[in-house]
Amino acid sequence: MLVVQKYGGSSVADAERIRRVARRVNDVRAEGHSVVVVVSAMGDTTDDLINLVESITDSPPEREMDVILSTGEQVSIALLAMAVKELGAPVISLTGAQAGIMTDNAHTKARILDVNTARLQKEIDGGNIVIVAGFQGINEKNDITTLGRGGSDTTAVALAAALKADLCEIYTDVDGVYTTDPRIVTEARKLDVVSYDEMLELANLGAVVLHPRSVELAMQYGIPLHVRSSFNLNSGTIVREVDSMERSLVVTGVAYDLNVAKIGLYDVFDKPGIAYKLFKSLADEKINVDMIIQSATRDERNDISFTCSQSDLKKALSVVEGLLPEIGASGVTSKDSVAKVSIVGAGMVSNPGVAAMMFEALAKEGINLEMISTSEIKTSCVIEASEAKKAVQTLHNKFNLAE
Amino acid sequence: MLVVQKYGGSSVADAERIRRVARRVNDVRAEGHSVVVVVSAMGDTTDDLINLVESITDSPPEREMDVILSTGEQVSIALLAMAVKELGAPVISLTGAQAGIMTDNAHTKARILDVNTARLQKEIDGGNIVIVAGFQGINEKNDITTLGRGGSDTTAVALAAALKADLCEIYTDVDGVYTTDPRIVTEARKLDVVSYDEMLELANLGAVVLHPRSVELAMQYGIPLHVRSSFNLNSGTIVREVDSMERSLVVTGVAYDLNVAKIGLYDVFDKPGIAYKLFKSLADEKINVDMIIQSATRDERNDISFTCSQSDLKKALSVVEGLLPEIGASGVTSKDSVAKVSIVGAGMVSNPGVAAMMFEALAKEGINLEMISTSEIKTSCVIEASEAKKAVQTLHNKFNLAE
Repeated sequence: MLVVQKYGGSSVADAERIRRVARRVNDVRAEGHSVVVVVSAMGDTTDDLINLVESITDSPPEREMDVILSTGEQVSIALLAMAVKELGAPVISLTGAQAGIMTDNAHTKARILDVNTARLQKEIDGGNIVIVAGFQGINEKNDITTLGRGGSDTTAVALAAALKADLCEIYTDVDGVYTTDPRIVTEARKLDVVSYDEMLELANLGAVVLHPRSVELAMQYGIPLHVRSSFNLNSGTIVREVDSMERSLVVTGVAYDLNVAKIGLYDVFDKPGIAYKLFKSLADEKINVDMIIQSATRDERNDISFTCSQSDLKKALSVVEGLLPEIGASGVTSKDSVAKVSIVGAGMVSNPGVAAMMFEALAKEGINLEMISTSEIKTSCVIEASEAKKAVQTLHNKFNLAE
Repeated sequence: MLVVQKYGGSSVADAERIRRVARRVNDVRAEGHSVVVVVSAMGDTTDDLINLVESITDSPPEREMDVILSTGEQVSIALLAMAVKELGAPVISLTGAQAGIMTDNAHTKARILDVNTARLQKEIDGGNIVIVAGFQGINEKNDITTLGRGGSDTTAVALAAALKADLCEIYTDVDGVYTTDPRIVTEARKLDVVSYDEMLELANLGAVVLHPRSVELAMQYGIPLHVRSSFNLNSGTIVREVDSMERSLVVTGVAYDLNVAKIGLYDVFDKPGIAYKLFKSLADEKINVDMIIQSATRDERNDISFTCSQSDLKKALSVVEGLLPEIGASGVTSKDSVAKVSIVGAGMVSNPGVAAMMFEALAKEGINLEMISTSEIKTSCVIEASEAKKAVQTLHNKFNLAE
């Protein structure tokens, strides 16, 4: 059996933890399996590197950012390989480039285009445990790219798909996927199984346990993921295809995201191509726009609001301001810290009125809704950041998720 | 003009120093020159990484050692590129692999075999200042290799040769090459010019200002080196071909090396092939043997002594012990810290009696000579480590080097 395992930064934060991961990896090999291990940078390494960069410049070129950030994983693969070797097992580390992870050119948030498995397969066939640097790859110019925060999950799933692995385990510092954040709601319950689409919405909505692109990729290739803790042997949450027959819960989980900023444009010209121009320009700058709301036409003018991550706010505002002559907005407002609270459940599509139950529960608590967005399996509301925790607790109760 | 500059770890030890290097690099470009910059890891980075490794294992696999050590330069190239960019100049960083530095497979002490200049030349032609990671390359398997301590000098000279650079400047934290270590002998004098062969001996003998392989390479390709300080604008020492007419001094400098260990083998079989077997086995393990002495035959048995670096002593002893049945030594002794003190001068070859003057001066101070080795332009003695400083001061006086 070929097993791909991914260990996050907290699982390799110090020498003792690295040795624990090495034993775990070695145990799997001892059972007769082939193992490919994807690791993130140790604990706070990435933040330390960012601090170093900030001592030099406020606006680092993104290509060079990737050169420096990718060293974090390069350190952890070497250390883990050494720890595995100490246990007597044959092992080799590979950087993203050596592992054949080919990406596009979007430095600091690149997407994996392909995995050239020649070297990987050779090392697996040679009997080596292969330790691969997560979060990184190379583009067609042979320049180092990184996949953005959480990108190591994507690396693991991409390798599992490319190598046709039998199992992909995502090790983290929590026991699995919960109905909501247990740090906020003590009654939060671990889910044994969650469908790809629900997991995708949960991940997109800020449940940090898996990176959304990794779920997308797993869904696309039908790779079941086992999300579990590296600190114990408990079984975690299986993310897989779930038949509609099996779907019993209307709402599976409550997610929240505190890293949200909001921009509003007033009195935008009401003519074709304006929205295209605005969001194309933002996309060209690699700004991920999340919710978009456009109000009804009045006097040939529109109001448009959208959200993005707080770190993109400054860049987004400068794009918007550059477009003002073309789009004709009479005013721009922004809020740099709002929160998004969401309910997710594959059963919502066949249960009308679930969104209304959500709005009712929040209204009873006096929480004002600034933006609303819905899809087949989720409803999200943007609210004041200070009310996020109360909202999550309220919704978890409302939909009886603790049971 | 194409200028290659190399900055050592102390020149890029913190943000302020990195900015200073960036200004210096930018100034050269502003004068209309093309610039390729080779940098080492920041200050104590390499030692920090070694500490990290030691928290995992006492005997790290050398391939993985190179994976982790090479991150040090990768961090500094990105930071320096960012600092140059802050000044508005076009710039790009390249790792050893990206810069086309091809080496052999001797991990942790690899030799550069070739430089594939395609990417480098493209970036230079595109007007970029190119910042290259020193100390590292890749082998034919696409695995990362490192060149050993001081290897960044070699990177710089190899690039200067491959790119046919007009000038190769080696920036360091001292003003140039001195007659001996100024920390030991206060009257030590900076040399304006030194020949390749003298510099090579000085470097091989422990004068840490330049890596011996870099001098060898510069001599081979006739690249003049300018060794100077990154902390001021003083001109330093030019290392170049020196006509015999110009050679005036009998002794140019006094060098010492405290990183010396000594192994002695007693009563080795006296038959052909024994020395070959011994030193071939040591070479196979990539142990650099320095001085070798074999005493005259008595009773068909020989005594053989040799020196190596202190870090290789353990490995060398295990090689020797594995060979005992074949070479028949009746005893093995070792000393893990002796010192080598040397006088160097191209004029020695035509001045008999210089070695004798050295022995006389040391004897007068009561310093015992444990091993002696001579070449055309140097004489070296192995002595007690505790007497090294006194020996250096004595020899500097004896040959009037302060004048």
